Amino acid sequence: LGKMTRLPVKLWLSALRVGKEDPRRIIHAVKVGVALTAVSCLYLLQPLFEGIGQGAMWAVMTVVVVLEFTAGATLCKGLNRGFGTLCAASLAFFIEVVSQKSRKEFHAIFIGISVFLVGFLTTYLRFVPYIKKNYEYGVVIFLLTFNLITISSFRVDDVLDLTKDRLSTIAIGCGVCLFMSLFILPNWSGEDLHRSTVHKLEVLARSIEACVHEFFQNQDRESPVREEKSSKDEIYKGYRAVLDSKSSDETLALFASWEPRHSRHCYSLPWEQYVKLGAIIRHFGYTAVALHGCLESEIQTPQSVRSLFRDPCVRVAGEVRKVLDELARSIKNRRHCSPDVLSDHLHEALHDLNSAIKSQPRLFLSSKSARRAAAERRPAAEKSTGLPSARSDITFALAPEWRGGKLAVADQPPVKEAKALRPTLSKIALTSLEFSEALPFAAFASLLVEMVARLELVIEEVEELSRAANFKEFSQDQIAI
Amino acid sequence: LGKMTRLPVKLWLSALRVGKEDPRRIIHAVKVGVALTAVSCLYLLQPLFEGIGQGAMWAVMTVVVVLEFTAGATLCKGLNRGFGTLCAASLAFFIEVVSQKSRKEFHAIFIGISVFLVGFLTTYLRFVPYIKKNYEYGVVIFLLTFNLITISSFRVDDVLDLTKDRLSTIAIGCGVCLFMSLFILPNWSGEDLHRSTVHKLEVLARSIEACVHEFFQNQDRESPVREEKSSKDEIYKGYRAVLDSKSSDETLALFASWEPRHSRHCYSLPWEQYVKLGAIIRHFGYTAVALHGCLESEIQTPQSVRSLFRDPCVRVAGEVRKVLDELARSIKNRRHCSPDVLSDHLHEALHDLNSAIKSQPRLFLSSKSARRAAAERRPAAEKSTGLPSARSDITFALAPEWRGGKLAVADQPPVKEAKALRPTLSKIALTSLEFSEALPFAAFASLLVEMVARLELVIEEVEELSRAANFKEFSQDQIAI
Repeated sequence: LGKMTRLPVKLWLSALRVGKEDPRRIIHAVKVGVALTAVSCLYLLQPLFEGIGQGAMWAVMTVVVVLEFTAGATLCKGLNRGFGTLCAASLAFFIEVVSQKSRKEFHAIFIGISVFLVGFLTTYLRFVPYIKKNYEYGVVIFLLTFNLITISSFRVDDVLDLTKDRLSTIAIGCGVCLFMSLFILPNWSGEDLHRSTVHKLEVLARSIEACVHEFFQNQDRESPVREEKSSKDEIYKGYRAVLDSKSSDETLALFASWEPRHSRHCYSLPWEQYVKLGAIIRHFGYTAVALHGCLESEIQTPQSVRSLFRDPCVRVAGEVRKVLDELARSIKNRRHCSPDVLSDHLHEALHDLNSAIKSQPRLFLSSKSARRAAAERRPAAEKSTGLPSARSDITFALAPEWRGGKLAVADQPPVKEAKALRPTLSKIALTSLEFSEALPFAAFASLLVEMVARLELVIEEVEELSRAANFKEFSQDQIAI
Repeated sequence: LGKMTRLPVKLWLSALRVGKEDPRRIIHAVKVGVALTAVSCLYLLQPLFEGIGQGAMWAVMTVVVVLEFTAGATLCKGLNRGFGTLCAASLAFFIEVVSQKSRKEFHAIFIGISVFLVGFLTTYLRFVPYIKKNYEYGVVIFLLTFNLITISSFRVDDVLDLTKDRLSTIAIGCGVCLFMSLFILPNWSGEDLHRSTVHKLEVLARSIEACVHEFFQNQDRESPVREEKSSKDEIYKGYRAVLDSKSSDETLALFASWEPRHSRHCYSLPWEQYVKLGAIIRHFGYTAVALHGCLESEIQTPQSVRSLFRDPCVRVAGEVRKVLDELARSIKNRRHCSPDVLSDHLHEALHDLNSAIKSQPRLFLSSKSARRAAAERRPAAEKSTGLPSARSDITFALAPEWRGGKLAVADQPPVKEAKALRPTLSKIALTSLEFSEALPFAAFASLLVEMVARLELVIEEVEELSRAANFKEFSQDQIAI
């Protein structure tokens, strides 16, 4: 009994939520109600009924089945239905003309055979991917209408009249649907696709930043567990939304491909380009998943080591986030993205991360290459002193002797390195670390670098989209807004 | 003109392919043809027509719309259609009883209002996710039937008769569909789901192994480019198939949830469990993507270093593949998986990889912890001499002095490590390697380890599935088969 009362309550609550999430849904429901009432007037009002008759039912049926949430979906279904009906009526009429002279029994057999053949062929055709994707509904309607007309023709004498009635009422139904969906507060699939692309970029940006913060957060243990939990949720939700977007994106793109040019913003929506961009974003998203995997890894790099790299990593993630945000903003505002979107900041941050990593002693030391290595080491050390030290106070506070150690290396003459290197190393490194302990951090850093590489692919694809969609040129004023 | 002739050829070729890929599709098309012909006999044969009349059209319509490829889909649609029609007929009849006593104009207005309200409510209800997923078709049919009956009632006197006719013909149509799909060569969604799960595991296993081979393959440059290409294709196809499986799996599971118990193998298909397993497998698959990402990374670890770790890595991948294959086999044969599926071999391989990694010198060396480090190092070195050297001939052939170096460390007294360590290090390492150069390999190794950790989740889920689906107990004989 408890379950019996709980179900309606749950249904009611989720119905409320559905309306709150997207108020356009309420408007759409009202539109359907109005369209249905309008079409049923064809039957209810005497003068209209005299013109159309029983066929009015077909108009009602068409409205119920064809009127969809977005204009593209309605167009797709409406045109499919119209075209399917037309083809079916023609074929049925042709068969009728061929067979009507024959005897009654032969006529019945002929109809039976054609019903079987057409049923077989259309059903088989529905499995062909291209047709399944674009014209499945049309094929179903074709089969339906063909059967109804062909079979009716056995007992109805004037098939041509029947066919014309059917066609005209379906045309009325489709007309009402198209009018309602194209001219009364239309919802465009293309717009939804556009918005979802922007949303994916934004969410991914947040998710990646949260992920990197999370990785380095454990060290300030005072942060409450709740906050950690919420940041994990954000990461998870971020990449989930992106990775699961494939089928919904493709559906939106399919419907968008049926939509006419509908705004002054773009010539016509390059929906294939959106689909391609979506695939690239998902590919980028896999790296976010892998990054997230590092958080959950069993082996953990000691905090002291992490704190060494915290700053450059956070900076790289921050820059990646900025780039993604800029991309999202440019798509949102339908303008080309800033030509220096892959800013020097990102390269600098990457370079800092690189030199922070390089500033640590070699993993493998061999006598053979030690000389060359030490020679290379000097510039690296100099570089890392050029590291934007103002921002890395935490790191340096933790390692007061670090800078001194680094500078000491630079002061060393590069000749008798084997001996000279040892004391320096001992000053630089904060802690002993096995390679196996460094694994998760190495993976993390490697994935960050990988991410930047893939980011370029995303930027390329966004630029292609801007060109294909004729976005506005980038101008400096806009960025100030 | 070229395009005009090319399209039919393309269509014809892809139609042939569709039948070759899955011959059940041809059978299904024949079934639809037979069902349609059978139903149209209701109209064509005089005695049957006298019993049913014009309503036979509704039976034809039902067959066209309801008869789907799998039994589950047909059941879902048929029951939805039946139930929707029944509810709609009841409500329409109730409204008719309430309003029929009133005047004609009032009757028309009443019908108009009820059409609007029901149209609005059902359309809105279709947005509720739970209803959208399970009962969308039923709701559409409800709206359709309700409108047709209510509007007809305005001009037809005997609505009860009309309703009964409608219900009985739809029942006949649904009956034919259910008979055809459940009893004549049925295709079960549950079976498809089962097969697709097995297929995903198999394909993922191949893909991971190919990925690891690819990573270490570059070193034998004599391998032709073509082969590399094909292995890359395999990797790509493998994880693509897995990652893109979400929506198709969920559709199959939805239809499977409508299917009755249909084989002696299992009590009833635990389709939720299959969906859960699918999600876990996808989660596992993300690691494969990340591994694949390592192949394409810009920075490449030198071949000489890779070859050091080649053997243990390939072994781990091989063991992971074996485990996945065993899981796939156990699901395929509907038996519990071997209790020692997480075999000692995998642990051994992982251990070897671990010790191969540990056998390399420390990443950071500090004077503070050097003493402790060296003390720890000794057992590690001893372990790595216990490495299954018989199998790693290639590695050792490349590094003749390596073993000697290792043994030398073990022989060293652990006291004056700072001096003693240096020459040993120089002997062990083959090449100088910056940490940044080691990154891709470290990421690769870390992902492999991560993969093994996630593998346990997959095994757990498969075991839960075996329990839920009442698979056969594992017996030693079966493995011999």
